[in-house]
Amino acid sequence: MAVLGTAAVEALIPVAALIGIAFAMLQWYVVARVPVPSHAGGGEGSKQGRGVRGEEEEGDEEDGMDYLLVEARCAEIQRAISIGATSFLLTEYKYLAAFTAAFAAVIFVFLGSAERFSARPSPCAYDPSRECRPALANAAFSAVAFLLGAATSVLSGYLGMRVATFANARTALEARHGVGRAFAAAFRSGAAMGFLLASSALLVLYAAVNLFGLYYGDDWGGLYESITGYGLGGSSVALFGRVGGGIYTKAADVGADLVGKVERNIPEDDPRNPAVIADNVGDNVGDIAGMGSDLFGSYAESSCAALFVASISSFGAEHDLTAMMYPLLISAVGLLVCAITTVVATDVTEVKESDEVGPALKRQILISTVLMTAGVAAVTFLALPPSFTLFDFGNDKHVKNWHLFICVSAGLWAGLVIGYVTEYFTSNAYGPVQAVARSCRTGAATNVIFGLAVGYKSVIVPILAIAAAIYASFRLAAIYGIALAALGMLSTIATGLAIDAYGPISDNAGGIAEMAGMPRRVRERTDALDAAGNTTAAIGKGFAIGSAALVSLALFGAYVSRAGITAVDVLSPRVFVGLLVGAMLPYWFSAMTMRSVGSAALRMVEEVRRQFDTIPGLAEGLAVPDYATCVRISTDASLKKMMAPGALVMLSPLVAGTLFGVETLAGLLAGALVSGVQVAISASNSGGAWDNAKKYIEAGMSEEARSLGPKGSEAHKAAVIGDTIGDPLKDTSGPSLNILIKLMAVESLVFAPFFAAHGGIIFDHL
Amino acid sequence: MAVLGTAAVEALIPVAALIGIAFAMLQWYVVARVPVPSHAGGGEGSKQGRGVRGEEEEGDEEDGMDYLLVEARCAEIQRAISIGATSFLLTEYKYLAAFTAAFAAVIFVFLGSAERFSARPSPCAYDPSRECRPALANAAFSAVAFLLGAATSVLSGYLGMRVATFANARTALEARHGVGRAFAAAFRSGAAMGFLLASSALLVLYAAVNLFGLYYGDDWGGLYESITGYGLGGSSVALFGRVGGGIYTKAADVGADLVGKVERNIPEDDPRNPAVIADNVGDNVGDIAGMGSDLFGSYAESSCAALFVASISSFGAEHDLTAMMYPLLISAVGLLVCAITTVVATDVTEVKESDEVGPALKRQILISTVLMTAGVAAVTFLALPPSFTLFDFGNDKHVKNWHLFICVSAGLWAGLVIGYVTEYFTSNAYGPVQAVARSCRTGAATNVIFGLAVGYKSVIVPILAIAAAIYASFRLAAIYGIALAALGMLSTIATGLAIDAYGPISDNAGGIAEMAGMPRRVRERTDALDAAGNTTAAIGKGFAIGSAALVSLALFGAYVSRAGITAVDVLSPRVFVGLLVGAMLPYWFSAMTMRSVGSAALRMVEEVRRQFDTIPGLAEGLAVPDYATCVRISTDASLKKMMAPGALVMLSPLVAGTLFGVETLAGLLAGALVSGVQVAISASNSGGAWDNAKKYIEAGMSEEARSLGPKGSEAHKAAVIGDTIGDPLKDTSGPSLNILIKLMAVESLVFAPFFAAHGGIIFDHL
Repeated sequence: MAVLGTAAVEALIPVAALIGIAFAMLQWYVVARVPVPSHAGGGEGSKQGRGVRGEEEEGDEEDGMDYLLVEARCAEIQRAISIGATSFLLTEYKYLAAFTAAFAAVIFVFLGSAERFSARPSPCAYDPSRECRPALANAAFSAVAFLLGAATSVLSGYLGMRVATFANARTALEARHGVGRAFAAAFRSGAAMGFLLASSALLVLYAAVNLFGLYYGDDWGGLYESITGYGLGGSSVALFGRVGGGIYTKAADVGADLVGKVERNIPEDDPRNPAVIADNVGDNVGDIAGMGSDLFGSYAESSCAALFVASISSFGAEHDLTAMMYPLLISAVGLLVCAITTVVATDVTEVKESDEVGPALKRQILISTVLMTAGVAAVTFLALPPSFTLFDFGNDKHVKNWHLFICVSAGLWAGLVIGYVTEYFTSNAYGPVQAVARSCRTGAATNVIFGLAVGYKSVIVPILAIAAAIYASFRLAAIYGIALAALGMLSTIATGLAIDAYGPISDNAGGIAEMAGMPRRVRERTDALDAAGNTTAAIGKGFAIGSAALVSLALFGAYVSRAGITAVDVLSPRVFVGLLVGAMLPYWFSAMTMRSVGSAALRMVEEVRRQFDTIPGLAEGLAVPDYATCVRISTDASLKKMMAPGALVMLSPLVAGTLFGVETLAGLLAGALVSGVQVAISASNSGGAWDNAKKYIEAGMSEEARSLGPKGSEAHKAAVIGDTIGDPLKDTSGPSLNILIKLMAVESLVFAPFFAAHGGIIFDHL
Repeated sequence: MAVLGTAAVEALIPVAALIGIAFAMLQWYVVARVPVPSHAGGGEGSKQGRGVRGEEEEGDEEDGMDYLLVEARCAEIQRAISIGATSFLLTEYKYLAAFTAAFAAVIFVFLGSAERFSARPSPCAYDPSRECRPALANAAFSAVAFLLGAATSVLSGYLGMRVATFANARTALEARHGVGRAFAAAFRSGAAMGFLLASSALLVLYAAVNLFGLYYGDDWGGLYESITGYGLGGSSVALFGRVGGGIYTKAADVGADLVGKVERNIPEDDPRNPAVIADNVGDNVGDIAGMGSDLFGSYAESSCAALFVASISSFGAEHDLTAMMYPLLISAVGLLVCAITTVVATDVTEVKESDEVGPALKRQILISTVLMTAGVAAVTFLALPPSFTLFDFGNDKHVKNWHLFICVSAGLWAGLVIGYVTEYFTSNAYGPVQAVARSCRTGAATNVIFGLAVGYKSVIVPILAIAAAIYASFRLAAIYGIALAALGMLSTIATGLAIDAYGPISDNAGGIAEMAGMPRRVRERTDALDAAGNTTAAIGKGFAIGSAALVSLALFGAYVSRAGITAVDVLSPRVFVGLLVGAMLPYWFSAMTMRSVGSAALRMVEEVRRQFDTIPGLAEGLAVPDYATCVRISTDASLKKMMAPGALVMLSPLVAGTLFGVETLAGLLAGALVSGVQVAISASNSGGAWDNAKKYIEAGMSEEARSLGPKGSEAHKAAVIGDTIGDPLKDTSGPSLNILIKLMAVESLVFAPFFAAHGGIIFDHL
C-alpha cells in the first residue's frame, strides 16, 4: 500500500542513526583540534596551535600575559571539573543501579502477579479471539526494556557530560580569538552531544524492537506493551539525574554567589571562591547530563506511546511494518534535517559579533522547523497508506494519511512558538527582562515581584499553542495523534539539544576564563555567549516542558486504553479527587526540591565562609581554597536529597492505582499534567528573566542599563538576589516537573495491567 | 414527614438572622463605649473615659505623655483613615454600579435570547411534561437577583469597612490598658462585622426567595434557577472589591515600606511617611471590605447551588418546603452557634498576655466547629425526611438524612483542618516560620527560597482535607452533597469573619498607636495582636479558598446539570483543552495583579521619595507630609488596574461557552478550580510566613530571634524584603484567585441555558 517498502524502512532507520553518530563524531573531531595541554605546565602542542591561529586572526593578543601559564591553568581547571563531574555521576549511577535493579524486580512482580504468574498463552487484550504471549513474558520483557531504557539514559547523560567537559576549556581558549570562534566551538560541542544522544536513542529502540520481535513474532500488542518499559527506564533515570544534578548545581551556585558576590564582592567564578569548582561541575551534571537524560526520556516515551497505540490500531492488526515504523521514520528524518541545519550554523553563516549569537541560535530553530515540515510531508506520503483506522478508546477512528502530517506538524510548530515566546520573555533584548531590570532600582522586592509576574505571564501563549496542537491532533487521530505531535516537537531534538547544551558549555567556558586569569575582553565574550545561553537554556526547558505535556497526554491515553477505562469523567468523585490531588503534587515536589537547594546552599555558605575566615591569604588570592570539600557538600546533599522527591514521583502512581483504583489514578495524572506544566513554565521563565536582567545590568547594554549598574551598585545587588532566587526555580524545580508528569504517566501505563486486575482496594469499600 | 413544620421553618430563619443582627449591634455598642473625641483637640468625653478606666486597670500609665494630645491625634488619624476609605469605596462603587447595570443587561439579553425572548410558558427543563414560567421571566428575575446580590455585597463590604475604621482607634486606645482590653475591642469589632454580614446575607436571600416565589408559585425550578443570579452578583462585586482593594492596599504598603523601612530606616507606620495613611486605608478597603464581599459571595453561591440542586431533586418535585430550606436552616443555626462561641471569647475566658491571643483565636474555631456539629445533627434530624432522592446528573440518587449530616460535617471539619494547618505554617510559634526567619541569616535570596517552599508545602494537607470532604459528600449525595459541604465550612462564617477582621483592625490600631506617638509598650501590644492577626488572616484566606473550592465544584456540578451535559470526559479533546487552558488562567490573572501592584508601588515610591526630597523638615518630623497625593495614587492605580483582571474573569466563561461550547467550558472550570486552589493557598501562606518571620525577628521572641535582630540588622532587612514580596501574593493575587474560580463557575451556571442553546460556534465547525 505504501510507497516505501519494508526493506527500505529496515535500512533507513539504522542508517540515519549511524549517520547521526558519524556527524556527532565529526563535530567532536573539529572541536578536538583546539589543543589543550595534556599535562599542567606542558604546552608544546598549544604553543604551535597559538602560532597558527595567532596569525590568522586579529584581536589575538594576550595583553602581556604568560601564554603558557594561562593554557596550563585552563587544562588544570578543566581536569578538575571533569574529575568532579565524572566522580559525581559515577556515584549517582551506583545508587541508580541499585534502584533500577530493585524497580525492575517490582515491575516483574507486579505485572507477573496481574495474571498470577501464568506462563500459559492468554487471550489478547484487544482481540480476545486470538492467543497472545503469556503475561509472565510481558512482565519479564517489560523489566528488560526498563533496564535497557535506564542504561541508555545513563549513557546519554554520561556522554553529554564528557562532551561538555571536553569542550568548555576549548571554548574559553577559542574566545581569545574572537566571539565567532568561541561560538563555533561551543555550538559544535552541543551538536556533538545532541546527535550522539538522538542517534543512540533511536538505534537502541530500533534494536530492542527487533530483538523483542524474535520472541513475540506476530504478537505486536505484547511486543509494544513491553517496549513501553524502555520509556519508563529512561525517565526514571532522568528524574534522579535532573533532581540530583539540579540540587548539586544550585547548592553550589547559590552558595558561591551568596558569599562571593554578595558578602565578599568578588566576581563570579573567581578562583578564590572555594565553591567555584563545584559550581562549574554542577553545570555539567545538572544542565547537561540532566537535560540529556530528560529529553532522551521524552523521546523514548513518545515513541513508545505512538508504537503502543499503533500496535492496537489497524497498522498492528494488519502487520503493516512500514506504517508501524512511522514514528521511528520521523525521528530518522529528523536526524538528517538537523544535520543540514547544523551545517548552516557552523559552515554556511558565520557569527562575528556578540549580538549575532542570539539570532543565529534562533535561526537554527526556524530552519530546522521549516525543513522538518517538508521531511514530515515526505515520510507521511511515502510510508503511510492513504487511509486506515486508529484505536480511539475502544472505537475505530478512520484517518487519512495527511491527517497524521497535520498532527506531527502541529507539534513541530507549537515547539517553534514555545521557543520564540520563551525567548521573548527571557532574553534581555526585549521589554519583559528590561522591565525586570528596571524594577531593581527600587530594590530586590520589586525585582522579585516583577520577575514572578513575567514568569506567570509567559505561560499564556505556550499553553494556548500546546492546547491548539492537542486539539488538532486529538481530533484528527485520537491519542496516536497526540503521540505524533509529541514526536513532531521532538523530531528536531538534535538541534534543540545542540543549542541547549551550548548554554552550560559557554557558562563553563566563562568560568574557566575567569579562573585562568584570562584578560577581561575574553571574559566579556564568554559573557555574551552565556547571556544567549541563558535564553537558549530557557528555550530548551520550554521544549522539554511542551513535549512533556504532549508525551504525558499520549501516555495517559495509552494508560487509559490499557486499563480498560472508557471515560475519565470529572463528574465522578473518584476522578475528581484524583484531579485535585494530582494538581497538588507539583507543589509538594517543588517544596521538597526548593528546600533541599536552600538547605544545601546554607551548608555551602557556611563552608565557604569558614574557608575565607580560616585559610590565611585566601581573600588576597595568595592561598588555594579547598575546592574538594565544597564538591563533597554538593555531592552528599544531592544524593541524599534526591531520594524523597524521587520517591514521591515513583510511589504516587503505585499508591493511587493500588489503593484508589484506575479512575482515581487517571484523574491524578490529568491533574498533575495540567497543573505541573504551568508551574514548570513559570518557574523556568522567571528564573531565566532574573538571570538575564542581572546580565543586562552587568553588560550595560543600553543607556538605561548603564544607569542601573555597574556591578556592585544597589540595583545590581537587587538583581543578584533575584538571580539567586531563580536558580533553584529554573534549574531544579521547574525542569524536574516535566519529568514528574511524564514519569507518572509512563509508570501508570506499564503497571496498568496490574491496577486493572487488582487496584482500588480502598475505594472499592467506600 | 420531617419533625419541623413549615411554619417553624418560616419563623426560624428570619428570627435567627435578626438575632444575629442584634448581636452585632450589641458588640458594636460595647466597642463604642470606648470614647474617642469627636473633634480633634476636644477631649471632654475622653478625659472622663480615662478617669474611669485609669482607676480600674493597672499599667495604665502614659509615661508622662500629653494624654489629651494623644487621644486627639488618634481621633484625627482615625478620621483621616475613615474618610480615605469611604471616599475610595464610594468611587469604586460608582464604577461597580455602571458595571453591574451593564452586566445585568447582558444577563437579560443572553438568557432571554436562549429562547428567542419568548414570553410564553415553556416545558420545564427537568420535567418536560409540566409547564414552567417563560424563559423571559427567568432572564428578568436572574438580572434582578444579580443586582440584589451585588447590592448586598456592596453593603457587606461597606459596613465592614465602617465597623473597622470605627474600631481601629478604639483598639489602639484600649491597648494602653493592656493587651486583654485591646484584644477584646478588636475581636468584638470583628464579631460585629461578621454577624452583620452573615445575618444580612441570610436575610436578603430568604426575602428574595419569598418575593420571587410570589411570581413563580410552584415552579421551583425556575425560581431557584433565577436565584443563582444572587450568587453571581455577590461574587462579581467581590472580585472587583478584592482586586481593587488588594492593589490599593499593597501599592501603598509596598511603596511605604520600600522608602520608609529600607531607605530611610524609619519604623513602620511612622507619621513622617507620606504613604502611611494610604497604607492604613488600604487595610480597610482590601482586607476588610474585600474579604467581607468575598465570603459573602461564597456563602451566597453555596446556598444558591444547594437550593438549585434541591429544586430539581425530590425536595423540589414534592414541594417539601422544610427540606428545601435545609441549606438556610444550617446557616441560621450557624449564626446561633457563633453567637455562643463569641461570648466564650469575650465574656467567659479572658486574654491577659500577648501569647494568649493566638490560642484564644484558635480555640474559637474549635469551639464553633464542635458546637456546630451538634447543631447540624439537630437540624438534619428535625428538618429532613429519613430518606429521599437527589438529582445526580440525570439519575436519581437515593439518600438518607444522616448522609447529609456527614456531608455538612465533612466541610465543617475540613475547614478546621485547613485552619489549623494554615496556622502551623504561618504562625511564628512553629518550625516553618522559624526556619524561614533563620534563612534570613544568609540574606534575602534564601529567605525567599525557603518562604516559597513553605507556601508550596502548606498546600498538601489542605488539599487532602478538601479531597476527603469532596469524596465523602460527592459519594453520599452527589453535587448536593458538595454544596452542603461548602455550606458546612461556611456555617461558622460569623466566627471566621470575626477572627479574620480582627487582623486588619489590630494592624490599623498599631499604625494609629505609632502615628499618635503612643509609648513603645503600647506599640508592642498592638504588634503582638497584629502578629496573631497575620496568622488569622492566613487562616481566613485558607477558609475562603477551601470553601471556594467546594462552592465552585458545587456550582460546576449545577452548571453541568443545567447545560445538559452528562459526562465531562477528559478523553474528549474539547474537554481536555478546556482543562489545560483553565489551569493556566490563575497564572494569567496573577501576572496581571502582581504587575499592577508592582508598578503602582513604583509610582508610590517615587512620590514618597519626592516628598522626602522636596518638603523641608519632613525627615526630621517638623513638617507634615502630603498624605492625600499618596491616597490618590493608590486610588487611581487600583481603579484603573482592576479592569483587566476583572475582564479576564468575567469574559473567559462567556468566550469559552459561546465560541467553544459547553464541554470546553466545563473543562475550563475544572482546570481553573484544581489549579487555582493550589496557587491561592501557596501564595497566601508564603506571604503569611514571610510576614511573621519578619515579626519573629522584630519581637525577639527567642534566643535565636534575638541573634537575628534587632530591627535594621542585615537579617532583618532580608526579612523585610521577603515580607514585601509576600504582600501582593497574600493580599492581592492569592485571595482574588478564589473569587476567580467561584465566579467563573457561577457565571457559567447563570448563562448555561444560553450556552446550551447557542454555544460552541467555533468548535462545531472544527
